[in-house]
Amino acid sequence: MSARRLDACVVDTRNSPNVRLRPVPPAHVSLRDAFWAPRREANGRRTLRTQLSHLESTGALDNFRRLGEGLDRPFKGMYFADSDVYKWLEAVGWHLADHPDDSELRGQAHRVIELVAAAQRADGYLNTYFAKERADERWTDFDLHEMYCAGHLFQGAVAYHRTTGDERILEVATRFADHICDTFGPGPDQRVAVDGHEEVELGLVELYRTTGQRRYLDQAVFFIEARGRGLLGAPYGHREPEYSQDHAPFRDMDAVVGHAVRALYYTAGVADVCAEIDEPDYRAALERQWHNMTERRMYVSGGVGSRYEGEAFGVDYELPHARAYTETCAAIGSVMWNSRMLALDGEARFADLLEWTLFNAVLPGLSLDGEHYFYQNPLADDGQHRRQAWFGVACCPPNIARTLAALPGYLYGVADGEVWVHLYAASGLRTTLPDGTEVELEQATRYPWDETVTFTLRRSATFALMLRVPQWCTEATLRVNGEVQDVTITSGSYLRVAREWSDGDEVRLELPMPVRYLTAHRRVSEAVGRAAIARGPILYCVEAADHADVDPRDLVLPSDPAAFVAGSSDLPGELPALRAPATVLHADRGPLYRSADEEPNVARSPATLTAIPYFAWANRAPGPMQVWVQRDVPVGRGRSVAGGDA
Amino acid sequence: MSARRLDACVVDTRNSPNVRLRPVPPAHVSLRDAFWAPRREANGRRTLRTQLSHLESTGALDNFRRLGEGLDRPFKGMYFADSDVYKWLEAVGWHLADHPDDSELRGQAHRVIELVAAAQRADGYLNTYFAKERADERWTDFDLHEMYCAGHLFQGAVAYHRTTGDERILEVATRFADHICDTFGPGPDQRVAVDGHEEVELGLVELYRTTGQRRYLDQAVFFIEARGRGLLGAPYGHREPEYSQDHAPFRDMDAVVGHAVRALYYTAGVADVCAEIDEPDYRAALERQWHNMTERRMYVSGGVGSRYEGEAFGVDYELPHARAYTETCAAIGSVMWNSRMLALDGEARFADLLEWTLFNAVLPGLSLDGEHYFYQNPLADDGQHRRQAWFGVACCPPNIARTLAALPGYLYGVADGEVWVHLYAASGLRTTLPDGTEVELEQATRYPWDETVTFTLRRSATFALMLRVPQWCTEATLRVNGEVQDVTITSGSYLRVAREWSDGDEVRLELPMPVRYLTAHRRVSEAVGRAAIARGPILYCVEAADHADVDPRDLVLPSDPAAFVAGSSDLPGELPALRAPATVLHADRGPLYRSADEEPNVARSPATLTAIPYFAWANRAPGPMQVWVQRDVPVGRGRSVAGGDA
Repeated sequence: MSARRLDACVVDTRNSPNVRLRPVPPAHVSLRDAFWAPRREANGRRTLRTQLSHLESTGALDNFRRLGEGLDRPFKGMYFADSDVYKWLEAVGWHLADHPDDSELRGQAHRVIELVAAAQRADGYLNTYFAKERADERWTDFDLHEMYCAGHLFQGAVAYHRTTGDERILEVATRFADHICDTFGPGPDQRVAVDGHEEVELGLVELYRTTGQRRYLDQAVFFIEARGRGLLGAPYGHREPEYSQDHAPFRDMDAVVGHAVRALYYTAGVADVCAEIDEPDYRAALERQWHNMTERRMYVSGGVGSRYEGEAFGVDYELPHARAYTETCAAIGSVMWNSRMLALDGEARFADLLEWTLFNAVLPGLSLDGEHYFYQNPLADDGQHRRQAWFGVACCPPNIARTLAALPGYLYGVADGEVWVHLYAASGLRTTLPDGTEVELEQATRYPWDETVTFTLRRSATFALMLRVPQWCTEATLRVNGEVQDVTITSGSYLRVAREWSDGDEVRLELPMPVRYLTAHRRVSEAVGRAAIARGPILYCVEAADHADVDPRDLVLPSDPAAFVAGSSDLPGELPALRAPATVLHADRGPLYRSADEEPNVARSPATLTAIPYFAWANRAPGPMQVWVQRDVPVGRGRSVAGGDA
Repeated sequence: MSARRLDACVVDTRNSPNVRLRPVPPAHVSLRDAFWAPRREANGRRTLRTQLSHLESTGALDNFRRLGEGLDRPFKGMYFADSDVYKWLEAVGWHLADHPDDSELRGQAHRVIELVAAAQRADGYLNTYFAKERADERWTDFDLHEMYCAGHLFQGAVAYHRTTGDERILEVATRFADHICDTFGPGPDQRVAVDGHEEVELGLVELYRTTGQRRYLDQAVFFIEARGRGLLGAPYGHREPEYSQDHAPFRDMDAVVGHAVRALYYTAGVADVCAEIDEPDYRAALERQWHNMTERRMYVSGGVGSRYEGEAFGVDYELPHARAYTETCAAIGSVMWNSRMLALDGEARFADLLEWTLFNAVLPGLSLDGEHYFYQNPLADDGQHRRQAWFGVACCPPNIARTLAALPGYLYGVADGEVWVHLYAASGLRTTLPDGTEVELEQATRYPWDETVTFTLRRSATFALMLRVPQWCTEATLRVNGEVQDVTITSGSYLRVAREWSDGDEVRLELPMPVRYLTAHRRVSEAVGRAAIARGPILYCVEAADHADVDPRDLVLPSDPAAFVAGSSDLPGELPALRAPATVLHADRGPLYRSADEEPNVARSPATLTAIPYFAWANRAPGPMQVWVQRDVPVGRGRSVAGGDA
């Protein structure tokens, strides 16, 4: 068994030359809030264990045993089944950062590592699909995820090595990485190729950070530079090059296009490279793509991927609600990307989106019982879409698990003389700043439900607290030791609170959370006449389970969001609900199309509208759900046919 | 060369026991209107000729030569490439009904028939994909369209035989049909199977009608009854059984589901069966599906197919505009189905939809030059979607060609003592009613642009003129020999005008066509706050080419559709445009989402809105287009932020 490593960092940019912020090792953070901590406990106690049993029952582990142990049976599952094993291993790695005594999972991970190591070929190659009957087909079809799996191996190995010191899995990873570096490159005996699914890039950068082997970083740059030159041809049943971001070099890209998970693992990998080398073209392309995504191609949940076809981004403003694809993995890709952008720049917009996406696009992918998953996360549904225990393509479940396990690493950042608070959650922080300053503090809050966050200093030191004031918060106030501070507080920025702190000093941030309505740019055609309900960092939805005898799609929002009152719900985990008096437009039994002259006056009746956090939908009886609630019936012939509050 | 057959009928229900209306042979109709006749001329003069050259250059004809002439080259194209040849042959068949002297096309068809006949196997089997290297794979995978191709062979053979008397192609068809009847069935030496793509059913019924061989009708029923029992398994990459309507027996189906072309070729085939045998369950299921389609799953254009994924119907009210799939072939399937329902029942709703679909869902599939095609027909576009000269999957082009060629067969229907006018178009009719009455009349009109239709009797006879009053027409008037008739005229019905007619009698129907706005059921989320412009049977759209410096998506409809004035356009063929003073909402450069409190007052300016017939879009410079035009900005916080005409 390996020792606990207290300095393990999730994305280890501690020595990266180009970052504004340094990471805080998860082991320096004790997360004990009422929101995330129970979910992380369930993740360790149940999720990671049931996922291992799924990996066993679906044959993903047996695929390794075929090679190492000579198990005589066919390969099972998708050709990228290995990656699910690696993501699980990564999750266990981060889990062990703050659960070092979980010997059961540690033992299971150890056995998995044995299987993985035993399956590696003598030349370092490792992929259980391209083995035995398909051994001759290695590196013949770059749409079959060999490098994608390699990237996940690298991430898993790095995580497990960083938290436990395990050398075995790191050696497996470096041997495979060396094989890849030897095989692909610009040299005379090398091949020029790129994988259909990005992932190896960020895996290589992280492997570089852990091993110090520069060739891994160079290899990541090689793969980025080789992309966009049509090497992939027409992947996957004649899809367009955009599907795999192979239509243009990264430095020329202006928009997020194609398969959303691919696109965002790619941007995350390029951002990782930018932390290590100066590449202004990459930085500029990352910025352009970030703006394109957030201003044209992102759901109000933070989720992305507008098309089932190709699991892909759509064109600008193409954001259908019920047919939103919004794969959980794409949201995780966005979190990965934004966390890297945040480290690069320290700009609050990245942290804002990271938080919003975690709450409203990643978390919906997981049931409240922690054992059922969404692959797609629609923003409206007729009640058919339900979470599953597992999938044939099982990318999302272990992806959520590794994200939850790594979460303490996302809360804080540090710099010389600065402690940056990215996410608000009851927690303790005990770390050392890059300049050597020892910091110890407590964060107390019931965020995201409550607007007060209190920091108590537990050690005297001089540094600045950098407190994120979310974009949605327009009336924040700051108190230090009870005194309101006369400072300009700007939404969507970090508030700098610099001081020679004494043990016991208290900083209190109030982030008022009135219920608000979000509206969409009018080119988002399905959102016309509708608004989404939000409070603080939480997006809400209306669901049938709260509305006996009323289809929630018939509800009309009250004109003033202040009409909402927070209360309890019957959801597990004491989740709150918002309630307001509202109107029901009675079901229109009329034809699909009619002359505008013939529009009926729709009957109305009063009702109570109950909104629940969107992430908690589909945890009760099936029924219609929607995020975008109608504000009023459309105007007809220049006159409003609406009564009531119009 | 074969003789001209004047009695050829497109769907030959002249002897069918269960129909309300009998067909009129196209040769009895001389279509000479300004709308369809030039399109049909172009179809014969250019389209059918260029299509033959595409069939040649893409290898579809060579696929036959591989067998008959032993041409040594691989099969080319899709595995159902044969069907394109058969559809072309069908189109030539109907073309020859009123162009009997087109010896060039007749000669080309003759050579194609030679190729087809020579490729038939000794046992009657005929499919060029399952030949040579794949000869052993016949009937092993029912998703590979062997029966689909057979059905198109039957339709093509029947058409060509009916109009020319050619026996050769009919013999090829019957030999293959016999092979299918021998192979598949309930007998001890037969197999129970159904094809993944419906089409053989209606082909078999038509073959029965032409040959009198009852076994073909029985075989169609067998295939319908065998379907919906899961025989297909999971076709095409693990699609759901709904994709191929294999989820339930037809008699139990309530909704149109799955691949839209499949679904509608299926309903057309079942309707064909219903003309021949009493099957109340089929009739009831057809009705339920028709209502489901027209009340829940159809675009305002009449097009169907809401999803790119699976080229499929969506769920109720799932009707995205820009991502509408609305395959041209699906619209044609709807025309086929509705024409059969019309024959069964004589209800105007079927003729209304047939006409609307022809103008607004089939015709957009063809460029105004007659040589470029849409596969998908979106209802909004950013300017990227353009017609192509041909497709890898080339189902749509010959499908449009055969529809245009057969059009004269859709104009009229007859019954004892009745002449039914389904479509208004300048034409002559000279036919014999089932009861032996000789009828001769002229129809004069500039429909669909003009509201007057005048019938002049050219022979004395006693019968009823049954004139369709479209659903959209609420103020129709009737004159006989100049005198207004005091009759109740009901929209969406046939107006019966019975009389002992004298040569020279004149019947004038006025069908006022004020510009009107269509609105959608409020569950159609993309249509909220929008309306579509229509005049008479024509759906309009707004396109960039008519709006210099204004993105048509920024236009707001005038509140009153009476503001529109008809005028000329710069489109070929003297197509009209509608113009009205309107408002431009200036481009919103704001964020994708914002708090409803922060909604800006959008700047407005006046503009002229020009609407053109939707079928004519994308015939000029590329640019945005939309059918559903915004009516006004949505209300905000209970107050309208709109100025102007609200």
